[in-house]
Amino acid sequence: MAANTSATAQSHPTLLIPGPIEFDDAVLHSMSHYSESHVGPGFVATFGETLSMLRQLFQTTDPASQPFVISGSGTLGWDLVAANFLERGDKALVLSTGYFGDSFADCLKTYGADVTRLTAPVGGRPQLAEIEHALSATRYKMLTVTHVDTSTGVLSELKPLMAVVNKVSPDTLVIVDGVCSVGCEEIAFDDWGIDGVITASQKAIGCPAGLSISMFSGRAIDLVKNKKTEPMTYYASIKKWLPIMQNYEAKKPSYFATPSSQLIRALHTSLKQILAQPLSDRFQKHIVVSDKVKKAVTDLGLRIVAAKPEDQSHAMTAIYLPDKVTIPDLLPKLLSKGIIFAGGIHKDIATKYIRFGHMGVTVVDTKRDDVDRAIEALKAALAECGYKGA
Amino acid sequence: MAANTSATAQSHPTLLIPGPIEFDDAVLHSMSHYSESHVGPGFVATFGETLSMLRQLFQTTDPASQPFVISGSGTLGWDLVAANFLERGDKALVLSTGYFGDSFADCLKTYGADVTRLTAPVGGRPQLAEIEHALSATRYKMLTVTHVDTSTGVLSELKPLMAVVNKVSPDTLVIVDGVCSVGCEEIAFDDWGIDGVITASQKAIGCPAGLSISMFSGRAIDLVKNKKTEPMTYYASIKKWLPIMQNYEAKKPSYFATPSSQLIRALHTSLKQILAQPLSDRFQKHIVVSDKVKKAVTDLGLRIVAAKPEDQSHAMTAIYLPDKVTIPDLLPKLLSKGIIFAGGIHKDIATKYIRFGHMGVTVVDTKRDDVDRAIEALKAALAECGYKGA
Repeated sequence: MAANTSATAQSHPTLLIPGPIEFDDAVLHSMSHYSESHVGPGFVATFGETLSMLRQLFQTTDPASQPFVISGSGTLGWDLVAANFLERGDKALVLSTGYFGDSFADCLKTYGADVTRLTAPVGGRPQLAEIEHALSATRYKMLTVTHVDTSTGVLSELKPLMAVVNKVSPDTLVIVDGVCSVGCEEIAFDDWGIDGVITASQKAIGCPAGLSISMFSGRAIDLVKNKKTEPMTYYASIKKWLPIMQNYEAKKPSYFATPSSQLIRALHTSLKQILAQPLSDRFQKHIVVSDKVKKAVTDLGLRIVAAKPEDQSHAMTAIYLPDKVTIPDLLPKLLSKGIIFAGGIHKDIATKYIRFGHMGVTVVDTKRDDVDRAIEALKAALAECGYKGA
Repeated sequence: MAANTSATAQSHPTLLIPGPIEFDDAVLHSMSHYSESHVGPGFVATFGETLSMLRQLFQTTDPASQPFVISGSGTLGWDLVAANFLERGDKALVLSTGYFGDSFADCLKTYGADVTRLTAPVGGRPQLAEIEHALSATRYKMLTVTHVDTSTGVLSELKPLMAVVNKVSPDTLVIVDGVCSVGCEEIAFDDWGIDGVITASQKAIGCPAGLSISMFSGRAIDLVKNKKTEPMTYYASIKKWLPIMQNYEAKKPSYFATPSSQLIRALHTSLKQILAQPLSDRFQKHIVVSDKVKKAVTDLGLRIVAAKPEDQSHAMTAIYLPDKVTIPDLLPKLLSKGIIFAGGIHKDIATKYIRFGHMGVTVVDTKRDDVDRAIEALKAALAECGYKGA
């Protein structure tokens, strides 16, 4: 079995699903940091620096922007958005490009929002003209967009979207689900005028799962402060977490709920690694590797779920299987070659495609050959399944 | 500086706050496990075994009981309870012995519950006769009790409480906040007829912070299934998590939100260690060490916040400072001797007392001398502060 050696000195198959991703040894080492007080000076400094580094990662220098790091999965971010920014009956326009966009809509509805979904056939995305039309016809309090939908690998470009929103409905709060994009696709929080990005630790940020990470604009925070009704949540209340995050960033201990000091140590390590290089270089490397994967897949005669190049994320590639090749047949063959891909998750095509994640150390660490090995393994495994190629 | 050596081979002061506690090296080693798929067979088996071991920890063999492990802090457990078991206007009786009981009440109110608090002067607890009277006078849908309130170190004994509830109001759902008790104070879930216990990973269970852990009875789960209104939460919805937990325990992959595989590996390791010995031995060891701490504190002429012996937890000791000794004076002197205690958190007495946690490896690992060193350090630090003793 071709395999890497981890921080734990255990060889293991290379995890190339669209999250969790492979983690750098230094990040894993931080996970086993000795126990420390969540209000002691060592951890307070680490957490404070982590919050400040998130401002750089999201490219925001506006002091009114506010980062949050809360124990939870990426899904918790949807509750943060729904519970804190919307009141019952508020209209929200959800741009959905797959399972995660649809689920974000479900979460908003759970909190009583009046949700309109804009969708597209699987592999596509709502077009700017439709979005402009919808925003012109109805006054929406919020628009949400899944930057990269992990179920389809569809990228929704934010810059032109923000230009449309700012033109036709500047009062609409724009919230980005960046779970599968923060750390690998560009997000210029200030320049593009985004109000919120929610994400998680275990994808392109390169820290193990267990942290909900988000950034909200001053306008979004003001909305929470001035809201007439209290949010119907305790754990996901931005008002409760706000002073905690502000205190930690000011290097002052603070308590609402015990943070995961080991996970935050690991996040600190991964953010230091990310920010040691220009972000533009990091995004460019993800583009180059993604292009290589897409070319290899196309050369093999396979179809990418996100059909148009401009709709394809650089974080992952969702690939239709050839006729007669099944997931239960292919994935074990890939595993025998030391590579783990994910099966499908979009209900309309779940059994017909696989997902190949290419984020983080797999892309930026020049000592690793994960992607080349994965492409070779895919070719060989398909051949073993009887697929003869294009 | 007297200090231990951790898994990371770094010497560090001994963390004796009432959570997070010191972690065993094997647990910390599990934290740095290589990245693995949350739906791959290795992790699925680990998570499934973890859930099954939780049944043993809570002493429940009723197959209708249901364990949950969700990324989040202990605080998330309150939202689970409030959002899933109560509907707007439902009456809840909260037995409060400090900051955490009061906060649990606040969380229930956030979700619209009609909350009555039974309290006692700081260091005491509501008496059984009062509780019986309250339950007889009003029909409560739920009673909550903080088994050990981390702000005061007050223990609320569950067995006699359950006898009262079962006698006068058997339909009332009893939910235990066991954040500072599960793993060190006895909880006989089935025998005592408890409906729910919520806890967290970082206290007596001995796994780093970041996991909300809970156990609910078949009766509680049925209530969720038959509830007329949908819970006003997405991430904390028991209905959404239920099939996920059931699938993992049946060793079948399942997805709602990405679990923290490293934290669950660490929890698996700590539960294996705990269950390798009879639970009764573990509880007894916590009693013996707690008695030793209480005697040493009393011999020093200091007062324990939980005044009566029967109200004192075995997880921790909250200790009033002598006159003229302050927290900013004492804690750095303790740190210089390699010991970390916590300051106060109960608003009425916050600056007047310290908290000494004695849980987990500190108590059960016979190779460690944490408690003896802590008692000596406390004596020496108090002397340096000018305290002359009893």
